[in-house]
Amino acid sequence: MTDSAMVSVDHDELRGYVAALLAGAGMTPPDAKQMADCLVESNLWGVDSHGVLRVPIYVERLRSGAMNPRPRLDIVAEHGAVAVLEGDGGPGFLAGLAGMRHAVTHAGEHGVGVCAVRDSNHFGAAGLYARAALDEGMIGIAMTNVMPNMVAPGGSRPVVGNNPLAVAVPAPTPFPIVLDISLSAAAGGKLLLASKRGEKIPLDWATDAEGHPTDDPDAAFAGFLLPIAGVKGLGLAYIVDILCGVLAGGAFGWDVKSMYAYPKERSETGHFLVALDIGAFMDRAEFDARMARYCASVKGSPLWDDTAEMLLPGELEHRTEVRRRAEGIPLPRGLYDELLELGHGFAGLPSLHRLRVVSTPSSR
Amino acid sequence: MTDSAMVSVDHDELRGYVAALLAGAGMTPPDAKQMADCLVESNLWGVDSHGVLRVPIYVERLRSGAMNPRPRLDIVAEHGAVAVLEGDGGPGFLAGLAGMRHAVTHAGEHGVGVCAVRDSNHFGAAGLYARAALDEGMIGIAMTNVMPNMVAPGGSRPVVGNNPLAVAVPAPTPFPIVLDISLSAAAGGKLLLASKRGEKIPLDWATDAEGHPTDDPDAAFAGFLLPIAGVKGLGLAYIVDILCGVLAGGAFGWDVKSMYAYPKERSETGHFLVALDIGAFMDRAEFDARMARYCASVKGSPLWDDTAEMLLPGELEHRTEVRRRAEGIPLPRGLYDELLELGHGFAGLPSLHRLRVVSTPSSR
Repeated sequence: MTDSAMVSVDHDELRGYVAALLAGAGMTPPDAKQMADCLVESNLWGVDSHGVLRVPIYVERLRSGAMNPRPRLDIVAEHGAVAVLEGDGGPGFLAGLAGMRHAVTHAGEHGVGVCAVRDSNHFGAAGLYARAALDEGMIGIAMTNVMPNMVAPGGSRPVVGNNPLAVAVPAPTPFPIVLDISLSAAAGGKLLLASKRGEKIPLDWATDAEGHPTDDPDAAFAGFLLPIAGVKGLGLAYIVDILCGVLAGGAFGWDVKSMYAYPKERSETGHFLVALDIGAFMDRAEFDARMARYCASVKGSPLWDDTAEMLLPGELEHRTEVRRRAEGIPLPRGLYDELLELGHGFAGLPSLHRLRVVSTPSSR
Repeated sequence: MTDSAMVSVDHDELRGYVAALLAGAGMTPPDAKQMADCLVESNLWGVDSHGVLRVPIYVERLRSGAMNPRPRLDIVAEHGAVAVLEGDGGPGFLAGLAGMRHAVTHAGEHGVGVCAVRDSNHFGAAGLYARAALDEGMIGIAMTNVMPNMVAPGGSRPVVGNNPLAVAVPAPTPFPIVLDISLSAAAGGKLLLASKRGEKIPLDWATDAEGHPTDDPDAAFAGFLLPIAGVKGLGLAYIVDILCGVLAGGAFGWDVKSMYAYPKERSETGHFLVALDIGAFMDRAEFDARMARYCASVKGSPLWDDTAEMLLPGELEHRTEVRRRAEGIPLPRGLYDELLELGHGFAGLPSLHRLRVVSTPSSR
């Protein structure tokens, strides 16, 4: 079996297995289940870079205490519709979900709610928290800061992270409108793909290790990312860092630590979560009718490219989820083996070999 | 004197002159002064595309009634920290400032305030409204929808506007942090400049009139804009349209009319304004200390490019304002003449020829 071989696993089995791993690493069973659900949901949407791929490092950090497995998530400041949550060095998934719950609660009362979270950790896909507001019929906005990994044009050292941003809007379509983007022109995975294919990359994607723009994907992978749209994306990334770090009373800039660069340390990540109660603006039925019109108008917009399709934000993720719920979640064989191996390390844990090899081929 | 000749005018004289023009076109003197201040401030920051350049079309629209010179700006929905403002077809400047005042008032009580504005018109630079929150020591966020002018990749007709977005953050630096961006990769002015210079443009800036990406600036000028960062900017533009249009209860998509394409019609533009009261999160002194550290860290980040300078968002605008307050605002001679000409059209207006020709050269 080659490196590129894939196995498919049932999403419910994967949830249970990952939850047991996380509980074995010290989390309470309900918290472990919540975090496992976040990871497997991300895989269902096709966001594999923020799915169970990350379980090994999370487990390592939970066991070492770099990530607190049993955080106290206290509100440390509250005024009207605004709250500040202390993440207590725990998993970003717990703090992110708790933060959005506070935002939603405040939005229920005030029409809008804001929760800034400090001293948290990697929270995976920002879309998870924006979507959490959908359960209450609200619009959700979520963002996080990360360790600086983008250079300013002309800079020789990263100055800000490619801080992701997500917005979720309820819609009467079979899926909600969900935008979930990072603020770098390209992700590391795209550089690797270009390298494998022997292709050049656009000069505005990344720089070499000295900060010079490069079209060589290998030089870029050893270098730094560039923001989307130059100073526009750079400025947006600063704003996200200011909201998630400066305003939240937590870390910002180089005080935020990547879990890969500093596996033994707290990341001190901050998040910023907003919920908007549609009912404060108009009747929900009217909003639904307006959103239906909006979505139909976008979907019906003409194309010249026969190979293109007008997709709404979140539509691709919805299709992937429908397929993966039925066919299983494809995992690289190496990751599958690593997850099984990880289970062997937990003495006294129940057997967790229930991952089924459903098929070998896979596509997102 | 050639087309490219510039004259400089004193900003205070320009304010008074433009205010008189707008009052002559039917606005109340206080409203006219407010709008003139917005336009001249934009010029002071160097945002000439949203300054007094627009006065002729505003005057035309005020006189024809396409833009209501005396709007009633009623709150039509209010719940907790959220308000919806009816713009009554008046100038976006009035509705935008009134909307941010409501947001600021709500933020003073609830920590955060939101005002959605519908049935408004062109509001100029989004930064005006974000900055309006600074006067109360708050963080301001402002956005607006515009008529669709961007195609989706593969599309042959615009599907969404390059909806601008601005954020202003108080800082103990000599200027506030202000980000003010549109969501298209390039503005029309950049295409014209490339055409004048005989240069090709990047393929991700714009398309020809059929929606095919082009590197020919003339074909692009006859075609459509492309969003920043492909589907990332496209998705952000949808979100802005949803907040400013769908959620505000106003027009969205193709129901928003450009004042150039439809000079005789209401634009039905929507805005979305948010204020965040820093005091709800932490003491202002602590925030200032943290912002000082943030700004110093960004400014001190090393550069490899000797010709580059690390500028904070809003820093260039601040420098331009300092210079233009002292040296005057440079206007193309043609625009200067047009403004004078416009004054002649108002019977009974006091003489308004006080625009001084201070100098001919100009730089931003």
